[in-house]
Amino acid sequence: MSVEANGSSAAGATAGGSLQSICYERGSLRLLDQRKLPLETVYLDVKDSTDGWTAIRDMVVRGAPAIAIAAALSLAVEVCNHDFNGTSEDASSLLIKKLEYLVSSRPTAVNLSDAVEKLRSLVLKTVETATEAKTVFQAYIDAAETMLIDDVASNKAIGFHGAKHLRSNLEGLEKISVLTHCNTGSLATAGYGTALGVIRALQSEGFLEKAFCTETRPFNQGSRLTAFELVHDQIPATLIADSAVAALMKAGHVNAVIVGADRIAANGDTANKIGTYNVAIAAFHHGIQFYVAAPITSIDLSISSGEQIVIEERSAKELLHSDGGRGKQVAASGISVWNPAFDVTPARLITAIITEKGVIIKKASDEAFDIKGFIETAK
Amino acid sequence: MSVEANGSSAAGATAGGSLQSICYERGSLRLLDQRKLPLETVYLDVKDSTDGWTAIRDMVVRGAPAIAIAAALSLAVEVCNHDFNGTSEDASSLLIKKLEYLVSSRPTAVNLSDAVEKLRSLVLKTVETATEAKTVFQAYIDAAETMLIDDVASNKAIGFHGAKHLRSNLEGLEKISVLTHCNTGSLATAGYGTALGVIRALQSEGFLEKAFCTETRPFNQGSRLTAFELVHDQIPATLIADSAVAALMKAGHVNAVIVGADRIAANGDTANKIGTYNVAIAAFHHGIQFYVAAPITSIDLSISSGEQIVIEERSAKELLHSDGGRGKQVAASGISVWNPAFDVTPARLITAIITEKGVIIKKASDEAFDIKGFIETAK
Repeated sequence: MSVEANGSSAAGATAGGSLQSICYERGSLRLLDQRKLPLETVYLDVKDSTDGWTAIRDMVVRGAPAIAIAAALSLAVEVCNHDFNGTSEDASSLLIKKLEYLVSSRPTAVNLSDAVEKLRSLVLKTVETATEAKTVFQAYIDAAETMLIDDVASNKAIGFHGAKHLRSNLEGLEKISVLTHCNTGSLATAGYGTALGVIRALQSEGFLEKAFCTETRPFNQGSRLTAFELVHDQIPATLIADSAVAALMKAGHVNAVIVGADRIAANGDTANKIGTYNVAIAAFHHGIQFYVAAPITSIDLSISSGEQIVIEERSAKELLHSDGGRGKQVAASGISVWNPAFDVTPARLITAIITEKGVIIKKASDEAFDIKGFIETAK
Repeated sequence: MSVEANGSSAAGATAGGSLQSICYERGSLRLLDQRKLPLETVYLDVKDSTDGWTAIRDMVVRGAPAIAIAAALSLAVEVCNHDFNGTSEDASSLLIKKLEYLVSSRPTAVNLSDAVEKLRSLVLKTVETATEAKTVFQAYIDAAETMLIDDVASNKAIGFHGAKHLRSNLEGLEKISVLTHCNTGSLATAGYGTALGVIRALQSEGFLEKAFCTETRPFNQGSRLTAFELVHDQIPATLIADSAVAALMKAGHVNAVIVGADRIAANGDTANKIGTYNVAIAAFHHGIQFYVAAPITSIDLSISSGEQIVIEERSAKELLHSDGGRGKQVAASGISVWNPAFDVTPARLITAIITEKGVIIKKASDEAFDIKGFIETAK
């Protein structure tokens, strides 16, 4: 069996297809080493959960959904390729022990612990009726593969709904140009991407004039990763400094903005990479549509508004040294730094939220979204 | 005679005084080598116009007013220290030839060619009545020194008027925090600075809580130069990414924004470093006052609005390589880049324009400034 992450060959960065960072076939997992990007395209073989743990800790793979799926698949490869002499209970114990180990590679990653929790439940449920170890392993492998397939399918659905909505909302235009911020593509998900998935869908439908991506300081996810994906997929694209966003909009070069989300509150307020709020204000000021594209799992109905989201701060070194903290010192010694990881864009600046279940729009005159209502209807 | 650029010792970066990039006493000129900042503080001796020409071409000194004054003073040092056997006409010819040479160090710098034109007129006027070469040289030296003194005095007046205006406009507050963009300090002028001069004045009056400076991508004038000046002057200061501006404002940390200007149109539209317009929109959105601080010479009454200002584009390398183009490649190969040097902030987003002659405010409900009227009244 071969699970294809994006509909093209599973052999990785195939010319013409969208970039693949997770290359999986049953019994084989290769991860694109994101530490080497954009200058080198190197895939690392991941043979077992130990390799998976190391790849996550060492940032070979990043992006919340990508981490969770890489972890799950590393264990699937391990149990697929190793002979095992034991009972179904032994198999269950082994899987649960290894899953706990995988969580420890990035203890703060919510998607990772959620995925592990789901897989653990599946294993415990299977072992209730299974008599053979291989039945438990097979159930685990199937579940891990389903996660990969579902994430890519979900992203493709986001792309489909987003492209359809934008085409209808901007129907006077033959083609549109779109600005995005940070990286939300194949390098952050299991494949295809969320906001970048919408851009891919617009491109494949012939409706994209050009994509603009910001540098996304201080960690340069835009200039390193999004620019790499856009060049790889041969999508017409231009890189700008974060500070050039408003000038670009004033020059009339942008028809819509599409960004991803780390977390969406019940009213639609959206936490995302620092700078998203800057872009949203500039888009609002210029009357440009501003979209958030994210799977339903990014929505946290327990949070009523963005006011409740605490902003994590990152290392000062990302600003003091070049290349997002990896290079030599560039800033003046002794200066204090404020380096928030995220900001919160209020719902009133967001035109619509694009999900795999469809597009959440506002009622006329509403400042907030009825996300709970949308989810209930979509079920 | 000793000309002190900032009221403290002319010996350079004196502890407690504001940073000096141009250290001049009659017969001696030293320039702070800005290529080595912020990691090394090295002054270069400039003995004649050849040294001055090289320092300007090699970017030892940058910033439009600083370049013009460094050029003028390099020739003043040369004629002060060299014996000369010749007539007043010979002296005049020599000075004019050397002035033309100095312009060629940066042919596009308007301040430099303006300064040279003024000095040439002075020389030609002096030689009409002078009988001795030394009279012509002395007149030249006096005029060059006056340029230095006038630029610093003008900046101090901008600081005085700006601080007074902000204190009265924000009188409910005990202290204020100010955000600035790019570098407008001692490293861009003859000393003290324009927007950074207002921050220095606020600090010396005990009214400054904190200064925030942006990185100012892609060339990092904020993290390299402004941060260096703020640390040097012991002004409480914090560096942020350009993309963190809106989040900083939303968090309530900023009471006012002060930026410099490359060119101000007759209606107040202001061309300044790329990103200024981004900051202005964010300030407007949060109801934060946004000031432009610049000498009257930055105003171009022949331009009725910012629409007429053509935006120059700079090298893609500034975004593709680290450290503003000086370091190794960081961005994806093959990506296109749009790298405008400036943007234009419309007058309606500007609270007031701070000059050495006072503060230009709008009439209530006006979107534009009556700058011509202000200049005529100020004469």
